[in-house]
Amino acid sequence: MSNTINRQFKLARRPVGMVKRSDFDFVETPAPSAGDGEILVKLLYISLDPAMRGWMNEGKSYIPPVGIGEVMRAGAAGVVIASNNPAFAVGDHVTGALGVQDYAVSNGKGLIKVDPKLAPLPVYLGTLGMPGMTAYFGILEVGQLKDGEAVVVSGAAGAVGQVVGQIAKIKGCTVIGIAGGADKCRYITDELGFDAAIDYKSEDVKEALKQHCPKGIDVYFDNVGGEILDAALSRLAMHARIVICGAISQYNNTEAVKGPSNYLSLLVNRASMKGMVVFDYASRYAEAANVMASWMQQGKLKTREDIVEGLETFPETLLKLFKGENTGKLVLKVADA
Amino acid sequence: MSNTINRQFKLARRPVGMVKRSDFDFVETPAPSAGDGEILVKLLYISLDPAMRGWMNEGKSYIPPVGIGEVMRAGAAGVVIASNNPAFAVGDHVTGALGVQDYAVSNGKGLIKVDPKLAPLPVYLGTLGMPGMTAYFGILEVGQLKDGEAVVVSGAAGAVGQVVGQIAKIKGCTVIGIAGGADKCRYITDELGFDAAIDYKSEDVKEALKQHCPKGIDVYFDNVGGEILDAALSRLAMHARIVICGAISQYNNTEAVKGPSNYLSLLVNRASMKGMVVFDYASRYAEAANVMASWMQQGKLKTREDIVEGLETFPETLLKLFKGENTGKLVLKVADA
Repeated sequence: MSNTINRQFKLARRPVGMVKRSDFDFVETPAPSAGDGEILVKLLYISLDPAMRGWMNEGKSYIPPVGIGEVMRAGAAGVVIASNNPAFAVGDHVTGALGVQDYAVSNGKGLIKVDPKLAPLPVYLGTLGMPGMTAYFGILEVGQLKDGEAVVVSGAAGAVGQVVGQIAKIKGCTVIGIAGGADKCRYITDELGFDAAIDYKSEDVKEALKQHCPKGIDVYFDNVGGEILDAALSRLAMHARIVICGAISQYNNTEAVKGPSNYLSLLVNRASMKGMVVFDYASRYAEAANVMASWMQQGKLKTREDIVEGLETFPETLLKLFKGENTGKLVLKVADA
Repeated sequence: MSNTINRQFKLARRPVGMVKRSDFDFVETPAPSAGDGEILVKLLYISLDPAMRGWMNEGKSYIPPVGIGEVMRAGAAGVVIASNNPAFAVGDHVTGALGVQDYAVSNGKGLIKVDPKLAPLPVYLGTLGMPGMTAYFGILEVGQLKDGEAVVVSGAAGAVGQVVGQIAKIKGCTVIGIAGGADKCRYITDELGFDAAIDYKSEDVKEALKQHCPKGIDVYFDNVGGEILDAALSRLAMHARIVICGAISQYNNTEAVKGPSNYLSLLVNRASMKGMVVFDYASRYAEAANVMASWMQQGKLKTREDIVEGLETFPETLLKLFKGENTGKLVLKVADA
């Protein structure tokens, strides 16, 4: 591989506020080789996730930050092009934390073999990947969803939100999605079957929640934080559960995170707010993937990816997440198979 | 009773910011008589609680607000001086929501008979009353306390906090109390046996929590909200539980409540924040009172009341709560038995 170029985005500095191209070094190095017990993977698709913004910050979190000078961490799907590891054959397709680059060497640990005949590779980064797992365990295990409840999800047209809402529908709930813009709202109601959508860019979310959830919200799945979390808190039903999955509205703040002013609604309504990290459910990913693949085959669970081409567009494409420009799972296409 | 004067504090207007005397009308009316099925109670002690500030506000809460012109709601202990209700005899002592006044008529509903020979009446408004019940069910049921855990309680020298910390000690936990001033800190460590105290008026709470909870906080019982809640959030252990019992720092705000900026620590630490209202446990009050009375007899659970004399001092005495001037349960003495 010594004649092959490996393009890499390395973290150059810790972003202040909105992430920008100059926070990365875009470098070209010779593609690596697989050492003893290792495999070489050619990346085909890279997953772009809101959590990546947090990984760029210094300080304790649920996972160590990306070091300055390190290849930016990212989930990805690729094909094995060289193998010194008996568990992987050339031609196998894998997903895992392969980074924002063309080629990655791995000892195989943490990689998952996937079958592109069963589902397109980008789906393994979305509904059958981390976002899908997050939705599945978040709404069912953390949210403790019950039949007939009123469920509200923010970031509803995003990778996690679209799955959360559909699972809640499958489980017999009334589902309200909050998303930005008429297109996204149409997508979640007309294509995904949500009962209603609230366009936070043109509607008063608090008033709309009052209208759509006359008996209050039983489960609120939060991907966004900020004002929308406060609006949801103002409409809780008794014994409501809030799942804190993310807070994309706050990730690029230069000021302190906006804490939820209405948190005392938890007291009034004997409600709970609980955080989750999907990694805790790793031992059950296969179970969830089986269930969701079966729903997909039955047409009950639809999925959409927003695929942008070109590794070189990484910083600007990542920004689509924070500008709310993606519908469905945002994926960067790096190469043809 | 027609020659006897009944002094009453009636809510005159909804307070803006800190409650003040002019928010009440202090009126004198003839003492009422007991009608059919009713009893007349002479109040001896009135319970002053942070929650009373919330009851003065308009709007939906866990209990309807006190109406303008109505006698201010308060828990109290008194003696039955006339009875047309076979369940109560003259001379019985009772506690219940009797209001800020000298005499109250009741049909007996919601009143609890208490025995002043077993414990002084003010204790029935504190550790054997609502504050004690709140502490008991809050730390054991909502907090799901486990042996050996690190427990932090704010408002630690107050009516609820002093009991929370002692129960956690009885259950084998390491207990850190947060209170304002050296006297309160000495009280909770030297008299109540807390492992450590943090004086929020003279210490950096976040740094002190780091020192006292090197492995993080397992259960945080919050009576205060504001900056202290944020400091606790910054030190959570994995799977920590936060019990939201109150937010006394925020009750007299004229601006919006300060939401906890560090709430995403719930995500990082897979932690939960849950609200509680003691009334939900009403069917188990007797069980809790029995357990706590037994701890008191064994000397394991101590209790202190801060007793101020004179119904007429009600507005100013209530302010002691919000100024942090009381140690232990704040009680207004209205009359001798």
